[in-house]
Amino acid sequence: MSWSNGGQEKFFEHVNANQSEYIQHLRKWVEIPSVSCQSNTRPEVIQMMHQAKEEFIETLGAKMWLVDNPKGTQFFADGEQVPYPPVLLGTYPETFDPAKKTILLYGHLDVQPAKMSDGWDTEPFQLIEKDGKMFGRGSTDDKGPVLGWLLALKAFKDLDIELNVNLKFCFEGMEETGSVGLSEVIFETCPEFFNTGVDGTCISDNYWLGTTKPCLTYGLRGIGYWHLTVEGASRDLHSGVFGGTCHEAMTDLVYLFSSLVNQKGEILIPGINDDVAPVTAEEDASYDAIDFCKEEFKASNGINLIKEDKKFTLMGRWRNPSLSLHGIEGAFYEPGEKTVIPRRVIGKFSIRLVPDMKPAKIHQLVQAHIDEQVKKLGTPNKIWLTNVSGSEAGHGESWYGNPSGFLFEAGKTATKMVYGQDPDMTREGGSIPVTLEFQNATKKPVILLPMGAADDGAHSQNEKLNVRNYIEGVKLLGTFLQEIK
Amino acid sequence: MSWSNGGQEKFFEHVNANQSEYIQHLRKWVEIPSVSCQSNTRPEVIQMMHQAKEEFIETLGAKMWLVDNPKGTQFFADGEQVPYPPVLLGTYPETFDPAKKTILLYGHLDVQPAKMSDGWDTEPFQLIEKDGKMFGRGSTDDKGPVLGWLLALKAFKDLDIELNVNLKFCFEGMEETGSVGLSEVIFETCPEFFNTGVDGTCISDNYWLGTTKPCLTYGLRGIGYWHLTVEGASRDLHSGVFGGTCHEAMTDLVYLFSSLVNQKGEILIPGINDDVAPVTAEEDASYDAIDFCKEEFKASNGINLIKEDKKFTLMGRWRNPSLSLHGIEGAFYEPGEKTVIPRRVIGKFSIRLVPDMKPAKIHQLVQAHIDEQVKKLGTPNKIWLTNVSGSEAGHGESWYGNPSGFLFEAGKTATKMVYGQDPDMTREGGSIPVTLEFQNATKKPVILLPMGAADDGAHSQNEKLNVRNYIEGVKLLGTFLQEIK
Repeated sequence: MSWSNGGQEKFFEHVNANQSEYIQHLRKWVEIPSVSCQSNTRPEVIQMMHQAKEEFIETLGAKMWLVDNPKGTQFFADGEQVPYPPVLLGTYPETFDPAKKTILLYGHLDVQPAKMSDGWDTEPFQLIEKDGKMFGRGSTDDKGPVLGWLLALKAFKDLDIELNVNLKFCFEGMEETGSVGLSEVIFETCPEFFNTGVDGTCISDNYWLGTTKPCLTYGLRGIGYWHLTVEGASRDLHSGVFGGTCHEAMTDLVYLFSSLVNQKGEILIPGINDDVAPVTAEEDASYDAIDFCKEEFKASNGINLIKEDKKFTLMGRWRNPSLSLHGIEGAFYEPGEKTVIPRRVIGKFSIRLVPDMKPAKIHQLVQAHIDEQVKKLGTPNKIWLTNVSGSEAGHGESWYGNPSGFLFEAGKTATKMVYGQDPDMTREGGSIPVTLEFQNATKKPVILLPMGAADDGAHSQNEKLNVRNYIEGVKLLGTFLQEIK
Repeated sequence: MSWSNGGQEKFFEHVNANQSEYIQHLRKWVEIPSVSCQSNTRPEVIQMMHQAKEEFIETLGAKMWLVDNPKGTQFFADGEQVPYPPVLLGTYPETFDPAKKTILLYGHLDVQPAKMSDGWDTEPFQLIEKDGKMFGRGSTDDKGPVLGWLLALKAFKDLDIELNVNLKFCFEGMEETGSVGLSEVIFETCPEFFNTGVDGTCISDNYWLGTTKPCLTYGLRGIGYWHLTVEGASRDLHSGVFGGTCHEAMTDLVYLFSSLVNQKGEILIPGINDDVAPVTAEEDASYDAIDFCKEEFKASNGINLIKEDKKFTLMGRWRNPSLSLHGIEGAFYEPGEKTVIPRRVIGKFSIRLVPDMKPAKIHQLVQAHIDEQVKKLGTPNKIWLTNVSGSEAGHGESWYGNPSGFLFEAGKTATKMVYGQDPDMTREGGSIPVTLEFQNATKKPVILLPMGAADDGAHSQNEKLNVRNYIEGVKLLGTFLQEIK
């Protein structure tokens, strides 16, 4: 059956008709506690990778293979040694049609930890359906979306609808723990798989901006992260015996911290905004239409906005740099009182990077600013700055996709067909480092095509995926592939 | 035998002759791991209190009794419930001579925790003698000094030397954990014991300023401790999603922290120095003679002095207020990186108080300063200041003894007789809250008469007491009592 001649309607009907089966399938996946950050659940992560491989083979006849994780074995602090999970690669259908575009699909099958005692209302590794929501760890992040690809492709097969593209798959099991080994697979172990013949990459691992309107995501901020260390003594000191005699490390660090950013969120590092891309008239006009409720954003997080303004808030989150002071290692952090003068304190801060800021240059600016401030401070304490991410080429850089390319056109068409409305074109304030890696490896565009909603609570208690987002999501992912021109 | 007619010489000879026995006795006490902060060693603390009671009774025929700890039972986080140890009170000799002064002696029999794995070179609960040093937890803090009183009194009894004073004893088992219940015993359970008939109190629970010259201590700094809380959100936030949109709590706290003290240790709170007692010419002249090596003070702690000056350093430590920033609760404190915007951060800082600063007034000044700075800051985040110690009457106040009273005269005479040199008259920068409590309860003077040296490492690994300090210390404590006029 051809897609344009009745196929699409049949596909939508088929997906609707199979809702119970699809939920049952997701239930099976959620019941595997594939938590990647703990040694004791690593076997379940590996099991999940094998299961996905078998299912893609059995269901579709896809060619799938597991690539040993290049990082080998992980040594945990508790003495446990467990292998890192393999990366699952694949192609579909069996023979690529050179007349069709080849799309790389990425997703992950590992999940964040979850226990009832964390405050879940239901068992996290059982899929509990209630009021149109499916609660369970991994439901939305990212088992639902990965399964969505499989189910859409299975539907095309069952309905004998010809697939409009060639597909490559890359599914991993360490995403929640820094995608250990994935870069190596992409750039070293299997570079040809990624750098040859791929026309575009689609990642379904983020969320709508709100809870009702679909979106396509074309930008992510990057990040630079610094450790600012001040050392004032060779051991922790008693403030009774030493207070008033020596230069205290905390006093210096607090001074330096306060020189970085002011209470309005303005970064005080000279030159930091020089390379921030100017706002075009088109961009400026685009914010009004975005489905974003600042009142809800405020209320659900209990925050005080820097400015009571929707555009300012979206720009602050998406397209302007920001600096956050995360905390201090080495100082007293427990409840109660302790009269310690910490010998050495390590201040942690990061800057979210946006186009066209370059991580290496930003580090130079930060270093120069700290040098200048240390000189002003005139302390004899030892002070040094370490850039722990963001200075390697490409690493930590922001990602800006081309929202008018063929991937986004297909995304817009699919959204309109499935949801009956145009998607919001959004950016996100956080980083998904693999995005830029796929773009760099394939030299082709990437699209983020989310399935879930803003309130899904990925990483939180009571993670859920709405039944509607799941079922319409299967349609969305399938339609996206079929509408690629 | 009379003290002045041969008794003193006999006493010194007797102490010298019994050195091995005295060390053996201290060994027995050190072997009882009377760690007061842990539930599992609380029985040993209680055992230690009973043992001291029996020994004072059997050795001297003193009247000794245990007072149930008014705080009853302690509930530990691990679910254990253990009683607080009793307080040991006593009098000696059996009949008080109204012609003699009555002296209250205080000490404690509990110790800090200690394990080989903390980095001890020898088993902490075995007394290991090496190179004239006796290593073991509690050797110097404070079992050696308490035993010193018992041994001196036993020597007088064995030699039939008449005791020159009436004695009251107060020994506790919770000193290392905040002297839980002691205030209640002093002021509520047994107020008459303390407020009737005592002429002076002697505490042997501190250290020489250096390692060679004895000292008498006549001053302690007090302390005020504050929690400064800033709340900016109802939950911890992801800096990618929220950075650049809202007022961050850490930014506010760091601003306020940096307004409290500068890098020279100068407190920036208006009015803070108004009540600091002026330096008299006599005091000013007294610092030169003090046995204090600033080079060693620097080198052994790896610190950078605010000023390369002995007098400035001693004054900074003893007689001037100082403000230390201890740390932040609620922010990221672990190694590594985390991109959190902490929802609520609690800054911890304290001010060491000196004569004639009054804790209640200091709190008012701190509060007024913070109010002023918050106004300047103009943040909508919630900010509040809590004074967690120092505001109750008497609590946290500094202590300043009269160094020319009869206690200090006896201390000087005894030091000269035992060590052949005049003691340094010192103050300390830290607080020993019971000092002021005894002074308030008895309305009579207190002296701090240390036995150990500055390098004894109380609270540290490899705590030790020099054999010399111990043996001469027994002489010093005994002679001090006999020389009271």
